[in-house]
Amino acid sequence: MADTGGNSWEEKDMANVFHGFTDFPSLKENGPVVLTHGEGIHVFDVHGKRYLDANSGLWNNVAGFNHTGIVEALCAQAQRFPGYHSFFGRIADVTVELSERLISLSPFDSGKVYYTNSGSEANDTMVKMLWMINRRKGMPERRKIITRINAYHGVTVATASMTAKPYNSEFGLPLPGFLRADCPHFWRFGLEEETEDAFTARMARNLRDLIEREGPETIAGMFAEPVQGAGGVIPPSKGYFDAIRPILREYDIPLIADEVICGFGRMGTMWGSDYYGIEPDAIIASKCITAGYYPMGAVILGAKLAAELEEASEAAEEFPHGFTAAGSPLGSAVALKALDVLETEGLIDNVRSLTPHFLERLSRFGDHPHTGEVRGVGFMGAIEMVADRKTKAPFDSKLRVSERIANKALEKGLICRPLGAAVVLAPPFIITNAETDTMFDLLEETVADVFAEIG
Amino acid sequence: MADTGGNSWEEKDMANVFHGFTDFPSLKENGPVVLTHGEGIHVFDVHGKRYLDANSGLWNNVAGFNHTGIVEALCAQAQRFPGYHSFFGRIADVTVELSERLISLSPFDSGKVYYTNSGSEANDTMVKMLWMINRRKGMPERRKIITRINAYHGVTVATASMTAKPYNSEFGLPLPGFLRADCPHFWRFGLEEETEDAFTARMARNLRDLIEREGPETIAGMFAEPVQGAGGVIPPSKGYFDAIRPILREYDIPLIADEVICGFGRMGTMWGSDYYGIEPDAIIASKCITAGYYPMGAVILGAKLAAELEEASEAAEEFPHGFTAAGSPLGSAVALKALDVLETEGLIDNVRSLTPHFLERLSRFGDHPHTGEVRGVGFMGAIEMVADRKTKAPFDSKLRVSERIANKALEKGLICRPLGAAVVLAPPFIITNAETDTMFDLLEETVADVFAEIG
Repeated sequence: MADTGGNSWEEKDMANVFHGFTDFPSLKENGPVVLTHGEGIHVFDVHGKRYLDANSGLWNNVAGFNHTGIVEALCAQAQRFPGYHSFFGRIADVTVELSERLISLSPFDSGKVYYTNSGSEANDTMVKMLWMINRRKGMPERRKIITRINAYHGVTVATASMTAKPYNSEFGLPLPGFLRADCPHFWRFGLEEETEDAFTARMARNLRDLIEREGPETIAGMFAEPVQGAGGVIPPSKGYFDAIRPILREYDIPLIADEVICGFGRMGTMWGSDYYGIEPDAIIASKCITAGYYPMGAVILGAKLAAELEEASEAAEEFPHGFTAAGSPLGSAVALKALDVLETEGLIDNVRSLTPHFLERLSRFGDHPHTGEVRGVGFMGAIEMVADRKTKAPFDSKLRVSERIANKALEKGLICRPLGAAVVLAPPFIITNAETDTMFDLLEETVADVFAEIG
Repeated sequence: MADTGGNSWEEKDMANVFHGFTDFPSLKENGPVVLTHGEGIHVFDVHGKRYLDANSGLWNNVAGFNHTGIVEALCAQAQRFPGYHSFFGRIADVTVELSERLISLSPFDSGKVYYTNSGSEANDTMVKMLWMINRRKGMPERRKIITRINAYHGVTVATASMTAKPYNSEFGLPLPGFLRADCPHFWRFGLEEETEDAFTARMARNLRDLIEREGPETIAGMFAEPVQGAGGVIPPSKGYFDAIRPILREYDIPLIADEVICGFGRMGTMWGSDYYGIEPDAIIASKCITAGYYPMGAVILGAKLAAELEEASEAAEEFPHGFTAAGSPLGSAVALKALDVLETEGLIDNVRSLTPHFLERLSRFGDHPHTGEVRGVGFMGAIEMVADRKTKAPFDSKLRVSERIANKALEKGLICRPLGAAVVLAPPFIITNAETDTMFDLLEETVADVFAEIG
């Protein structure tokens, strides 16, 4: 038997848990926050302290932390049939029902759903699907994957290779064959005197050059988030998807929309692809698909890729891939109810009707002398801090500005997220007008306090 | 809106679901099996047909398909706090509790738990942990991963590269740097007149040669299942782990025990590592950790690797890795209850007490003229069919012998699993003596019928 340390929750945590995506200096200084329960958009720690979670957990707890309807659906299914796999042509009835629902919600006239437990697994699966299709089509060299600077597609070895964040050098990633296109962030990457239209045209030209340089016959697909999420809430420049879509079609390169963050209403539409008219060949879904009440990811294949994968699998006798717990009856029942709540019980409507107020309050940070850019769409927003507004020079990373804002906010009972030099807000879809004001009031106070400290 | 096909459950499935690890000829011929619920060790399809699931779902539904205690714990937690992440030093109280429990159940005096949603994600994460540790130690070239022929470690691009099954060539895998050691299966790979001891010595010698050939300074770790599961239930040859353990220590190569199948009682012990006295440096856990009622995986790091990873993460300011839904309160509460059920409510005791009867009934297949080997340990067993017992030559794969056995069994209401040339049994831990007899009676009938057809 192990000696597992002290007796407080925090000590037990520090003795037994290894935390990912956690700022170690902050953890050493402040310890973990151990949570007991939630109510609406708030969570509570073991000391009874309440936090307004302005990030919906991790973009996903959009119906709040104690949604009665989803909990009831979950318990009802648990009593009927909680766990089964979907290998060997076996599947639960509710999983069939969910699949029909997802195809009908999708931008595709027909297609096929493949389940995983996470967005990482779904993106990783999509890569394998493309590789198998291409090999069976006699094009085994067609393997390279294009993603964009600041993209986030997951944390498995392959999906971390698709995630163009500097921290992946810690693992010696990306692997070879994972290519980087530009990030269509006009404010950050636009050239002096370049118009937004000229910037978009340059993004498209550079993508074509990348494809030509690498050889289109070596490229399996391009993955793109409609709005880059973990990159720091980066909507594309005007006309970006309209500009790149024909190029990918010309070279017969599938476009995979990673809708893990944008999907299911974050932007006020069902999909980010709807918002920008993207017409993807497949969709990667996760997060809000269960409103954060169950781990689930899905690859939703449009008709063309579904047919190609079916043909490849028939030739191979199987698609030799699957995750034990994926497509479980419990997760499927939760997803069916979450989709009801989002679509027919008013959550996406609420996003749409509160978006103007959310974006107006967000825009007020534009007056702050250290705000470089305020950007947002739907219920996702970012405030990017800079040392110098004119040169857009970031603060010295040693100052840890966004970390300090997040830590100070936490003290005040507000959870927001530092992402690089930005502070990100992505509130639950159930938030009210008054709660939106509270959230922004707390953040304004926090930012004022931190800059008073920095001087 | 999509046209999603016909109205029967089977038609809806075929129109909307893409099935992994499914034999396409069987699916085309027989259609999917759509399930509604389970009772004890049985599941039921939409037509009311009952199936005895001799594989516990996928090795994981070991408490049966409607365990009242686990369902109650699940619903109670869902009402209290269903979903939260474990990023940014935040975590649910029950997840802290589970971590303490897992370390105390582990073979380690102290260590750290890191959560994922699946065994695939846990193995993939472990690879990244080793790569980060080695880079921060100034050994960035120490990246190669050793696994063994017939190993199964998952389906992500990296873990499929660790899975030494022929089907991964469909994806152009393994990636470079994923090395193969021998499979310690004496019956299949022993040389003529070689004793089992000599075979084991050869396995160890070959491993040393592989390490020397590749260069020990290029090898990050070796992953091994105590008993190879999806490879076809292959227990190691006598003394195998005792023979290889010192070699790995000598070269300072961590040994990671993949306990996804063996862990939590399948062999009558808590870990397969206990059964063979393996002394791993880390454990990969999943499946039975929630008895199949929730998707969960965990990396359980022993003290040394935990300290090394902590040091690397402190230097990098974070461990830049994490899965949104991993370490959720709902999954943790399910796991805590499942561990109670396994450990203190008699399930592992039942495995231990029924193992002799299970193995005795299994061994009777040894008399069949087409049985090459019958092998098993605890509640996992395999019957490997051959065309010729003497030469051990397998049947022509076109005969699809093990597929035909599985399909015929399904007709008779028995779910068993074809794995290569073997038929595998891994019953739920709650099975009774009488149900064990029913299971074997059905399989005996099935095998007789299929060989009568083949002639």
